[in-house]
Amino acid sequence: MREVAILGIGQIAVDEHWDKSIKELAGTAIIAALSDAQRDSTEALFIGNMLSGILGKQENLGILISDWIGLPGIEAEKIEAACGSGAAAFRAGIIAVGSEEVDSALVVGVEKMTESLPVETTEALATAADADYESSQGLSFVAINALVMQLYLHTYGWKHADFAPFSINAHANAMQNPYARLHEIITEKDYKAARMIAEPINLLDASPTGDGAAAVLLVPADSLINHKKRIIKIVGSASATDSIAIHSRKDPLWLSAAEISARKAYDHAGVGPDDIVFFELHDAFSIMSVLSLEACGFAERGRGPRLGLDEHITVNGKIPITTRGGLKARGHPVGATGIYQIVEAVQQLRGEAVPTQVRDAQIGMTQNIGGSGATIITHILRAE
Amino acid sequence: MREVAILGIGQIAVDEHWDKSIKELAGTAIIAALSDAQRDSTEALFIGNMLSGILGKQENLGILISDWIGLPGIEAEKIEAACGSGAAAFRAGIIAVGSEEVDSALVVGVEKMTESLPVETTEALATAADADYESSQGLSFVAINALVMQLYLHTYGWKHADFAPFSINAHANAMQNPYARLHEIITEKDYKAARMIAEPINLLDASPTGDGAAAVLLVPADSLINHKKRIIKIVGSASATDSIAIHSRKDPLWLSAAEISARKAYDHAGVGPDDIVFFELHDAFSIMSVLSLEACGFAERGRGPRLGLDEHITVNGKIPITTRGGLKARGHPVGATGIYQIVEAVQQLRGEAVPTQVRDAQIGMTQNIGGSGATIITHILRAE
Repeated sequence: MREVAILGIGQIAVDEHWDKSIKELAGTAIIAALSDAQRDSTEALFIGNMLSGILGKQENLGILISDWIGLPGIEAEKIEAACGSGAAAFRAGIIAVGSEEVDSALVVGVEKMTESLPVETTEALATAADADYESSQGLSFVAINALVMQLYLHTYGWKHADFAPFSINAHANAMQNPYARLHEIITEKDYKAARMIAEPINLLDASPTGDGAAAVLLVPADSLINHKKRIIKIVGSASATDSIAIHSRKDPLWLSAAEISARKAYDHAGVGPDDIVFFELHDAFSIMSVLSLEACGFAERGRGPRLGLDEHITVNGKIPITTRGGLKARGHPVGATGIYQIVEAVQQLRGEAVPTQVRDAQIGMTQNIGGSGATIITHILRAE
Repeated sequence: MREVAILGIGQIAVDEHWDKSIKELAGTAIIAALSDAQRDSTEALFIGNMLSGILGKQENLGILISDWIGLPGIEAEKIEAACGSGAAAFRAGIIAVGSEEVDSALVVGVEKMTESLPVETTEALATAADADYESSQGLSFVAINALVMQLYLHTYGWKHADFAPFSINAHANAMQNPYARLHEIITEKDYKAARMIAEPINLLDASPTGDGAAAVLLVPADSLINHKKRIIKIVGSASATDSIAIHSRKDPLWLSAAEISARKAYDHAGVGPDDIVFFELHDAFSIMSVLSLEACGFAERGRGPRLGLDEHITVNGKIPITTRGGLKARGHPVGATGIYQIVEAVQQLRGEAVPTQVRDAQIGMTQNIGGSGATIITHILRAE
């Protein structure tokens, strides 16, 4: 497969966008990405989205959005892997360009969530779990994650407060990101005092949903020989799955799909965890940050919280994470999240992430998760 | 891109499967395809599905189904392009294997529709249209197609009865297909007497929905050098879009996305319409058969009904269509339809389609449509 590069990026603020329909959200991010790339067209369009059918009574997003942006005729489709839909669509775009089937692919992640009642959104998100064995029993996503976090605290002997640095870091990093949903410094005191949602997960362990869209334009890397900006190449891409239900896993505290997809991505890129300068991980809940860091080789099993307590996850730490706010503070418009992560990684690699710019950010990793660790998609990007 | 071949096929009867959940429907077709291929695994799984979220409160089908078939760990995702989801997933599988990213890909199209009330299904299908401008005005899919058929009759001067041969042929071809939804010979008299649904479309112009699943296993063609069965290669694959809404098109009677995707597929394959021995087209409504035949070069504009009246579309005609019953009689489990078409084309190319076997069936075409001509995906398969 030929090498693929990211030529343009675009995003809108994660927020309540009551004045924009889903095609307008996506269209705005796409126009920004095309403008950044100084292009006016694409051969193919891949949409990452989870909930448009259930919450918006709208499927067929491929043609809906290609038509809206003035490009009817092109190839277009939607890809769904729950909250991992964005990265799944990104990977489809990489393979389409890499295979030489097309010479350009726009990938947009988009989600419109805030027009629905909270109970509707919670029910819609539960469709990522097994309807026969999980959601039909009343298991919501926060409940599933609460069971995992409880087991983690019990098994490895950590206190809930030991997870505070993950949320504090995410909020601090979002302060100067104009696209973030939350702009609010939080302290350990705030974290401890936050309202309980599903014990032990409280409000500050959980990421907020929102309406959002982010887009990237992919092209063959060898078409950029005379390109003036830094060239951002995708050097590792892999997707893996685990059992859909936590109760089916041998070890509910180990993200085996993260381990598999990270290992494949490391192998593709010819690097290891020590070479990764920053990591945009999937902190839908603080426990997920810890499990992801462990499965990807940044911490030993059961030792993940140490990275937070020792300040290794901050922008100036050993392995900076959620450098633009992460799911926790930038927000989690589910099908769009995977593309926000890519856009933010490109900002870091281009040196456009001031004031949360990571030094010597030449190689970065992103990881997007669908379901409770069920589908995990890992990418490694490098600036050249 | 390297050449890709279809090693195994599997399907279940299109029917009311009240005793099977969506993962069981898909799993049964997958096991049949793996068994036909004499394989027990795949590296990747692509699911074509439209309505599982809305009708079944189930998303994340990729991992749901990979887990169910005993292959957690593999890459898996759902692809949605309304009623064209099956072919869109098939094309994703081709590109994944063709790009050398994986050495095998299972593609399954699956839909579970009959547990819902008819009004729920009609509303769910309307999500393929533009929610802002079409479905919100009460336009259902049969209504959209009725407007098109009315305009066609008016513009070109045909009578409704001139469309009868398309439905009669489809029903006749389904009689010996054990996987078909309807096993019932119909006559011109039946066609004329059928209950009106949305003038001029009557019950026998429209395809029935149903629960269904069909699967294929894709592998690199060069891995089959010592293969004992006929090798079925994909020699043309293309996807194109038109404006999502009929009212936005310059000519509502011309399927420009069919024309574009067929032209690309012909070019890939190095053939033209005269070389195509049979054509599994998307006869969701009889008018669509006519528009598809015209846009793909089998009839002049406005002359499509002649192919039916002159018996050119029958198994022994010049361009046999819907040779196993088509959407009209095999049934239209929407996201699965595109894979049923591929499975049936492989049956023809292998010579396993008795008693509706087309003679000298060495090269065949399939075409799957999402929305009212909005997303059209065309494939050309060849036996070697």
